[in-house]
Amino acid sequence: MTATRRGRPGYDLESLLTVAVTVFNERGYDGTSMEDLSQRLGISKSAIYHHVTSKDALLRMAMDRALDGLFDALERTRRLDAPAIDKLEHLVRTSVEVLQDRLPYVTLLLRARGNTEIERAALQRRRQFDRYVAGLVRQAEADGDVRPDVDPATTARLLFGMVNSLIEWYRPAHSDLADAVCAIAFHGLRTREDER
Amino acid sequence: MTATRRGRPGYDLESLLTVAVTVFNERGYDGTSMEDLSQRLGISKSAIYHHVTSKDALLRMAMDRALDGLFDALERTRRLDAPAIDKLEHLVRTSVEVLQDRLPYVTLLLRARGNTEIERAALQRRRQFDRYVAGLVRQAEADGDVRPDVDPATTARLLFGMVNSLIEWYRPAHSDLADAVCAIAFHGLRTREDER
Repeated sequence: MTATRRGRPGYDLESLLTVAVTVFNERGYDGTSMEDLSQRLGISKSAIYHHVTSKDALLRMAMDRALDGLFDALERTRRLDAPAIDKLEHLVRTSVEVLQDRLPYVTLLLRARGNTEIERAALQRRRQFDRYVAGLVRQAEADGDVRPDVDPATTARLLFGMVNSLIEWYRPAHSDLADAVCAIAFHGLRTREDER
Repeated sequence: MTATRRGRPGYDLESLLTVAVTVFNERGYDGTSMEDLSQRLGISKSAIYHHVTSKDALLRMAMDRALDGLFDALERTRRLDAPAIDKLEHLVRTSVEVLQDRLPYVTLLLRARGNTEIERAALQRRRQFDRYVAGLVRQAEADGDVRPDVDPATTARLLFGMVNSLIEWYRPAHSDLADAVCAIAFHGLRTREDER
């Protein structure tokens, strides 16, 4: 933690957010009250309000942490001077890294169902990301670099379905995960295509 | 619906279960009371109890509906006289079909976090399924039929991560989904391996 320590001793905004996101993931955002956060943090509600104006503000910060990571990966991909297929593989790889680095935040994002205004805004940004991925698949297919027998939108969903499944089972012990995802998704599991 | 109509007019056990699972998926099992079900169904709680002894009983039936489908696919795979790689592809294909056929039930299963005894028992059966898949990947790798650069347990998780992502985005309009999943997972997205 390198964030500047502010306010009451014991928590800065960064460590408070970390705990809040853990509790949101355990109990659901709707099922978590400021009272629950206060108990888990071991500080009063007014000490929490010293750092943030509302529970919503914590949710917004958490969603932004996830989305900013993904959109940073998207922007780096967009700037690459490379065919769409390579951009797609780059984006899959960097997205896996974002999920690994920001797992609790992305978990919260991917479980959001649009119950609040903040969740709906986050889901809208997610859809923008998904549309960019589908566009890359479409372009790669037009270039003849992606198998033509799969629909681009479906492919985009399956690809990121695999990536996003990390939130269900990833533990930091899994190394080389980005390599594994790209190996399976782009080259397939089977070693022997021609002999069969 | 072919289930025999029983009890009060308007609902048999099958249609009651269908509505209950929809509500569980919307509000979460823990967040749904018998009163909520009664309101949604438009019948009294005692009319519900005419069909089932408890909310738990509905959850158990729903979990079994999902797990029985998946284990039926597993048993059919086990009986195949084929190399592990083909068994694996068969199981992926039939699992996609189970998810399509029993989507609300599998959705409930995959979102279960082990908060109740019934959920914990269901998660244990899920882990049995996952172990069988990992064993198939391991065998296929030993046979030289699966790329050796990915860990079998990770491969199993990524493969079913892709399959299970269906619960987030599948709509009945998606046809040939099992073909798309198998094409990507077993043969990879890239058309041109050698030219690069």
